[in-house]
Amino acid sequence: MRCRKCGEKACINMRQHKLALCKTHFLDWVPDQVEHAIKKYSMFTHHDRLLVAVSGGKDSLSLWDILRHLGYSADGLYIGLGIDDSVSYSDKSLEYTRRFAQEQNLMLHIVDIKAEYGETITAVAMRTHRGHYKPCSVCGLVKRHEMNRIAHQNNYSVLLTGHNLDDETAILFGNTINWLGNYLIHQSPVLEANKLGLARKVKPLCRIYEREMAAYALLRGINYIHEECPFSIDSTSIYHKELLNNLETDRPGAKLNFYLSFLRAKKDGLFSSATDENAELLHACSECGQPTTAPGLCAFCRMFVST
Amino acid sequence: MRCRKCGEKACINMRQHKLALCKTHFLDWVPDQVEHAIKKYSMFTHHDRLLVAVSGGKDSLSLWDILRHLGYSADGLYIGLGIDDSVSYSDKSLEYTRRFAQEQNLMLHIVDIKAEYGETITAVAMRTHRGHYKPCSVCGLVKRHEMNRIAHQNNYSVLLTGHNLDDETAILFGNTINWLGNYLIHQSPVLEANKLGLARKVKPLCRIYEREMAAYALLRGINYIHEECPFSIDSTSIYHKELLNNLETDRPGAKLNFYLSFLRAKKDGLFSSATDENAELLHACSECGQPTTAPGLCAFCRMFVST
Repeated sequence: MRCRKCGEKACINMRQHKLALCKTHFLDWVPDQVEHAIKKYSMFTHHDRLLVAVSGGKDSLSLWDILRHLGYSADGLYIGLGIDDSVSYSDKSLEYTRRFAQEQNLMLHIVDIKAEYGETITAVAMRTHRGHYKPCSVCGLVKRHEMNRIAHQNNYSVLLTGHNLDDETAILFGNTINWLGNYLIHQSPVLEANKLGLARKVKPLCRIYEREMAAYALLRGINYIHEECPFSIDSTSIYHKELLNNLETDRPGAKLNFYLSFLRAKKDGLFSSATDENAELLHACSECGQPTTAPGLCAFCRMFVST
Repeated sequence: MRCRKCGEKACINMRQHKLALCKTHFLDWVPDQVEHAIKKYSMFTHHDRLLVAVSGGKDSLSLWDILRHLGYSADGLYIGLGIDDSVSYSDKSLEYTRRFAQEQNLMLHIVDIKAEYGETITAVAMRTHRGHYKPCSVCGLVKRHEMNRIAHQNNYSVLLTGHNLDDETAILFGNTINWLGNYLIHQSPVLEANKLGLARKVKPLCRIYEREMAAYALLRGINYIHEECPFSIDSTSIYHKELLNNLETDRPGAKLNFYLSFLRAKKDGLFSSATDENAELLHACSECGQPTTAPGLCAFCRMFVST
């Protein structure tokens, strides 16, 4: 297999694009694709103040790397959740993130949930019984809240996350197989800034396969945490990823087509906007000021402040 | 495993319903489920004139049988497509259908496409290159046209087809994985009668799994053609059926939930009705009078009449 651009030995073959590339051209191609998505979905410009949520994994660290490569200046945000199993998942992931920031001379905000609020997310999940066995719903809630808080307090206009195409299609598949209308309507590469002061949220890697992101991190020599979050094992989203991987093997391009045809159908007006009326009914939380559906405390503050 | 109703030995266990039943109670349960769907989706009443499209397969013959069991009087329509491979698929399926009608003393209309229009569907597909290797798109077009024609000429108010839950979810999955908005909007257990004179179309088996329909046919001693249409091998819909079967094995009830949550989301107004504006723009075909999107001949008449 030869590189389509230069004829040298290819290091990756992307069947869905009918494209094989050598290391040099692949390491140019990925940032080009990301820049294309940034422009196509009007995610941000060089004038925006960017904050990347970094977890120490391949996607978020590579995104940070790609942004630098593209000439965007972006700061990082690491949220220490206190996931402390046998491998000390949170400690390790912070270590990878901190080292990357230091080596690249990048500004990193670190929030430690336990230091800030007195409890790790696993402890909160146990106390509130929200997670039963797993703290995943608490984790999502805490991350959303803290990303918004730090972005707001530091005047970032755009929040970036490292969701890749496999993440997005797994979420989309879960929303579709259960026809969760409200989630389908809101799934997008860009969530616009909210009137109540939330930064715009964007996913610049949304068109890049997970496999390509892993190859990018490897070829760029980025050191990242290889372990998955211990709570993600046996999760529905991993089950859906496997199902979509099988589909992709049989029908190369199926994942990309699933995602892009969804975005196209949405843009063409498939969904009724009437379903989204509750967006107008958001209130500011009386404690933190972040949007919530009912007057009073938001779900995050109910969880922490009411203790 | 014991029958939930009588405690006798169960002959079928339906994991998605957490329900095991003996032969007697299963043969009552299936018609009850069908009656429930007929009422829930307002498909028809005892005053309607019903025409069942029968292919000689387990679903359509069982549907005809169930309707009789429920006290509905329904005539049958068999369309001879001329699919004439090594097993003489069309001849065999007609034979099963005719025998069932005779034994049950039911009225059967038979349309032979070659006798009526001079060509089998495989010959039309070859001539028009519509099907490339397979005549499936010609087959769908011809069946729709002929069902409408016979229903109209004989004053049937409702046309019934034997699509089961597996058929419906495979179609839904295909429409969803490619986000075919126009198809999603129109997929329904009931297609209302059209102003231009088309009968209402309904799918009374839409909530019953294929496996249950096979069990019903077997336990009722219905003789049906076991071979699948030779052109269906390797088809995308069979691929999607297998994928959904794997999902069902891991998550019992997944298929039913996929279908019912889709119908619910649709009823709750997920889809924009704006996308369906072209429904108002139908014309009557100048040859046969059936609806078509452009003035002049419909696709069926263009195919046959213009020769």
